[in-house]
Amino acid sequence: MPDLSARSCAAPASPIRRLYPLAREAKRRGKKVYHLNIGQPDIHTPEAFLRGIREAQLDVLAYAPSQGLEQTVEALAGYYERCGLPVGENEILVTTGGSEAITFALTVSCDPGDRVLVPEPFYPNYQGYARLTNVEVAPITTRREDGFHLPSLSELRRAVDARTRALLFSHPGNPTGVVYTEEELETLVELALEHDLFIIADEVYREFVYEGAHRSLLSYPEVEDRVILVDSISKRLSACGARVGVFVSRNKEVMTAAGKCATIRLSAPTFGQLGLAAFLADPQHERVIEAMIQQFRRRRDVLCEALADVPGVTFRKPEGAFYIMVGLPVSDAEAFVRWMLTDFPEEETLMLAPGAGFYATPGRGGDEARMAYVLNEEDLLRATSALHRGLASYAKTAGAPASP
Amino acid sequence: MPDLSARSCAAPASPIRRLYPLAREAKRRGKKVYHLNIGQPDIHTPEAFLRGIREAQLDVLAYAPSQGLEQTVEALAGYYERCGLPVGENEILVTTGGSEAITFALTVSCDPGDRVLVPEPFYPNYQGYARLTNVEVAPITTRREDGFHLPSLSELRRAVDARTRALLFSHPGNPTGVVYTEEELETLVELALEHDLFIIADEVYREFVYEGAHRSLLSYPEVEDRVILVDSISKRLSACGARVGVFVSRNKEVMTAAGKCATIRLSAPTFGQLGLAAFLADPQHERVIEAMIQQFRRRRDVLCEALADVPGVTFRKPEGAFYIMVGLPVSDAEAFVRWMLTDFPEEETLMLAPGAGFYATPGRGGDEARMAYVLNEEDLLRATSALHRGLASYAKTAGAPASP
Repeated sequence: MPDLSARSCAAPASPIRRLYPLAREAKRRGKKVYHLNIGQPDIHTPEAFLRGIREAQLDVLAYAPSQGLEQTVEALAGYYERCGLPVGENEILVTTGGSEAITFALTVSCDPGDRVLVPEPFYPNYQGYARLTNVEVAPITTRREDGFHLPSLSELRRAVDARTRALLFSHPGNPTGVVYTEEELETLVELALEHDLFIIADEVYREFVYEGAHRSLLSYPEVEDRVILVDSISKRLSACGARVGVFVSRNKEVMTAAGKCATIRLSAPTFGQLGLAAFLADPQHERVIEAMIQQFRRRRDVLCEALADVPGVTFRKPEGAFYIMVGLPVSDAEAFVRWMLTDFPEEETLMLAPGAGFYATPGRGGDEARMAYVLNEEDLLRATSALHRGLASYAKTAGAPASP
Repeated sequence: MPDLSARSCAAPASPIRRLYPLAREAKRRGKKVYHLNIGQPDIHTPEAFLRGIREAQLDVLAYAPSQGLEQTVEALAGYYERCGLPVGENEILVTTGGSEAITFALTVSCDPGDRVLVPEPFYPNYQGYARLTNVEVAPITTRREDGFHLPSLSELRRAVDARTRALLFSHPGNPTGVVYTEEELETLVELALEHDLFIIADEVYREFVYEGAHRSLLSYPEVEDRVILVDSISKRLSACGARVGVFVSRNKEVMTAAGKCATIRLSAPTFGQLGLAAFLADPQHERVIEAMIQQFRRRRDVLCEALADVPGVTFRKPEGAFYIMVGLPVSDAEAFVRWMLTDFPEEETLMLAPGAGFYATPGRGGDEARMAYVLNEEDLLRATSALHRGLASYAKTAGAPASP
């Protein structure tokens, strides 16, 4: 049998994959497990979106055009216009989720062996897309005590080398909730201009902003030929299963290259595209999104207030997205999360995403964990209460001080 | 602006992409263009499939499990069982179309720089998936006069080198319609065993067989650890826009590696998966497929009979799929297809897929074209009639003998 162990596909499983079987086992034992480890919102998918799918008149479910269904591309152009980001219809490509948009962006901006700069902690799947396209992730470390804001331009410069082709980041940030200031964005723009880099701006949490304002990288005219906007309806419409994302660029060459990627995989899923077009045609759609954002803002406030009472937990209130990266009073957050699933003796427990999985730099994030506030306020409070009691109980166990 | 011209994404556009604008232009001038160039069937998507989507009870359109929705995986296991190919549920992965299944198969079986053997002419997107994964396509030429059947084992052996990791082919064949004999399949099995190769068997046209019988590569126990079955519902259910495919392997390590690929892109589209589960739960579903196959068989017969009357057109009646690769009495089929769209003076014309695009070997297929018999019988006859008159008219033009 061919030996796969030396192949690049044999990368180690992520910590979260090791923990899921333990969560399933805990549930089999009758425990309630609060899943704060995954960004799957509990919000109802808007009725206008679902109606667009139910009422679609289709005889033949044919391939959509590779670029996207005409009405979907048109609706998206209107959406970006309303966001203050006018883009032409030929500057939009509908993708199979934001995942595919990032894969296309890396394929277009990098050749195999090239490097992409990514502020860490970052969305772990970035590492996966990079591996798929044989691109190397070069991390720029940001710190919890700085609210995960960016280091100075001179520090950023030191991370660039001759094979660096692009910057990639989510903004608002997953897992950090950071929203960059105008000054930080200008620093990134300057770096890109100085070193001839593409800017791959993953703005899927665009509307999820609770402090200050979010400015899109696409609004900087001096880099409009080097910005690739990555977008998705998964969070904004609570439609993760639709698998609809967007790749936007004002650079013709980039769109031509991305168009070739799109042709190869034929088309993005038709039903999700129909739902999106129907949702954006609903005059109420902005209000639907705004109501959801208010809900997430309350959840953030409730969670942060509750976490402030948990001894040893450190964080800065996040400005956006629906995540918070917290420091825990343990030396090995993964061991603690595992213990919460296997040994914590109470009826209710929680699952967090261990911090190390969000860093490319070995040793970083070991005492951190990401919480996604995707549950209702009562569940968030119950989960935080379980965390509180769990940390107290864990501190008394033999395993706690020196983790395995 | 970063220079993209030297990047691997700057691959040349396929001939078919150059021809589409001409077809659109012809239609604007009021011409009827019969599209025999693309494998988009005109068959109605089964009602049971569409009903499964319309009637889905969903509050939150959440990510499906990366492996696929439980009911879809279960339904697929039942389908393969009925095909005489028993596979466990953990040996099935639902993908975003067959496209993604092939990309996963190449990622799992090859490292960047490795080679995959592909009998040519082949489905041109194979080249795209290979480029995306930095794998090199090594063609094995097959010939129209042999009905595109495989060369001998000794000839196949000569194509293998130290970096060859896999065989990839569609069976029944696109664009050739070939269905391999048991003897040919055994030759491939022997080659894989001799040279430690994976067998990536793209069997999306499994049911589309009009002569003899189709045997799946998965039915050979001696290579069960090295076969990766690639499948799709696009053609079988006329549901190209659903973007649902399948990756099947009995090799645990392969499934683990493919599972990691699947985790990175989160999930395949939920609606297509719901439709598939509903279709396979319909007691009539086998009859629905069988009726469609009968329709394609008649189309093949009608088309072949009509083509036999066109002077200079050469072919062997294909055994499966819904394509036929024909020789044309011209030196440059692409120039002829272009001429049919721009200069042919009649009201009705047709678009074919020029043969060269299906070959990796330069110079091959220049006088060939692929026809997809995805239109009704009357349209097929009208298209063939346009071809007949077009070839006669083209032979009289100055441009014909020495093509541009």
